[in-house]
Amino acid sequence: MAVMTDPAWTWRGRVYWEDTDAGGVVYHARYLQFLERARSDWLRDLGFPQVALRRDEGCLFAVTRMHLDFLAPARLEDELEVTVAIKALGRVRLDFDQEIRRAGGPELVTASVRAACLDSENFRPRPVPGLLIRAVQARMDGN
Amino acid sequence: MAVMTDPAWTWRGRVYWEDTDAGGVVYHARYLQFLERARSDWLRDLGFPQVALRRDEGCLFAVTRMHLDFLAPARLEDELEVTVAIKALGRVRLDFDQEIRRAGGPELVTASVRAACLDSENFRPRPVPGLLIRAVQARMDGN
Amino acid sequence: MAVMTDPAWTWRGRVYWEDTDAGGVVYHARYLQFLERARSDWLRDLGFPQVALRRDEGCLFAVTRMHLDFLAPARLEDELEVTVAIKALGRVRLDFDQEIRRAGGPELVTASVRAACLDSENFRPRPVPGLLIRAVQARMDGN
Amino acid sequence: MAVMTDPAWTWRGRVYWEDTDAGGVVYHARYLQFLERARSDWLRDLGFPQVALRRDEGCLFAVTRMHLDFLAPARLEDELEVTVAIKALGRVRLDFDQEIRRAGGPELVTASVRAACLDSENFRPRPVPGLLIRAVQARMDGN
Repeated sequence: MAVMTDPAWTWRGRVYWEDTDAGGVVYHARYLQFLERARSDWLRDLGFPQVALRRDEGCLFAVTRMHLDFLAPARLEDELEVTVAIKALGRVRLDFDQEIRRAGGPELVTASVRAACLDSENFRPRPVPGLLIRAVQARMDGN
Repeated sequence: MAVMTDPAWTWRGRVYWEDTDAGGVVYHARYLQFLERARSDWLRDLGFPQVALRRDEGCLFAVTRMHLDFLAPARLEDELEVTVAIKALGRVRLDFDQEIRRAGGPELVTASVRAACLDSENFRPRPVPGLLIRAVQARMDGN
Repeated sequence: MAVMTDPAWTWRGRVYWEDTDAGGVVYHARYLQFLERARSDWLRDLGFPQVALRRDEGCLFAVTRMHLDFLAPARLEDELEVTVAIKALGRVRLDFDQEIRRAGGPELVTASVRAACLDSENFRPRPVPGLLIRAVQARMDGN
Repeated sequence: MAVMTDPAWTWRGRVYWEDTDAGGVVYHARYLQFLERARSDWLRDLGFPQVALRRDEGCLFAVTRMHLDFLAPARLEDELEVTVAIKALGRVRLDFDQEIRRAGGPELVTASVRAACLDSENFRPRPVPGLLIRAVQARMDGN
């Protein structure tokens, strides 16, 4: 497993009513959805929309481990930046470091996320497609 | 299409943080999830869990039309009663009348819901399984 | 209550894993969240972010009635367009016509939505702020 | 901070369509909602419904840290058991160990969850109410 320094890629989105709870701030589980939207768009930006990955390669990614620190709350209408950086690139998995912050502000949430590559038929671990690994490596070399 | 008077069947559940928003009350789209949990458990109680319906009959139900009146808000920790009554039993669809209230209280939400029976492979309309129609009719006759 | 022809305003967004269900398509209640994101950004674009409306005018909007037709399903990674058009402008409420479609495609969902203006303290109906009414009318006249 | 062995308390609930995604299994962020429903009902069972905690004590709990291992997927209509056990009882926080499994089956998800006690007005950390600490300790002694 190669450990890497990958400059972060950033997803931007807004907090809507659906994301908040009666405490007046974003409900904690919703941050996982922001993190996942960011990883999905990172994959798409890399050339691997997940519908195509499933259709062409028979693979999908599943989160198998997460560590989350909720440092400060986001609120209704906040504009969020969610970063995606590869921490380690394994044979059958990707390890990400992610952060959520308001534009230009300090971290609200930090997360380590492990996503395993699974066979979309039987849900068993399988190698990450070579094309995807090479695309990740190329992006890192290019930076 | 037969129009019926079906005594209501009742699902009970509680409001959690996930269901609320920063207005301090239940987020409007969440009521649809309470309505759907009630219809799912009504089907199960009738003898037709949906995993079996899909596996054995190749069918699933999809909501194709809803009318909703949001009369009063539910709040964190409220215990809700959600009723399910068949309004009409069609060849390819079921029409439901549903209500959400606090135990013993007035309606918070009333809904008319049309659920179409679809082929689970191609998503095209198909007849409601005969066994299910007979089970609905038997329940009504029995009441 | 004035009835109007309001050229539609469009919100754009993508379908993520969180929006789908085990049927392979978007879960029906999630469309309400797309509709609400569009109305929220329409208000913001008009100059009335809802955090400011609550702080400065003591008002918030609550959906009190919806009619929905689910015509065809959206799928993972679809890019959606959600329109917002004012159908009627009342003293204490706004009536919207909304549609969801894939970019350039036919309607997937059509919705009529009534949003009541409520006092944010006691949740009682109150007049829509005059500034907001004038902004809606100005936009219509300008078109 | 006292470290404890607390026999697990169990919440039971079912997987509905809303909980699943197009992969055919439960969407990962939804497990956090199952975990939170279990903690909420554990608090209620202990005599501390959260609406009362906020009204009478001016406090609410916020998740500040989570570690999650997703070991195997839950599926539509599964009946889940979610356990709640106190791992450590701090002055301003509660540390929980939680597990999700199918009735009688192996773990699907294991979680360590830290919940901080916050002042409901200003969201600053504050001591866990003494009555609540004594109720937790009494339950442990009683077991």
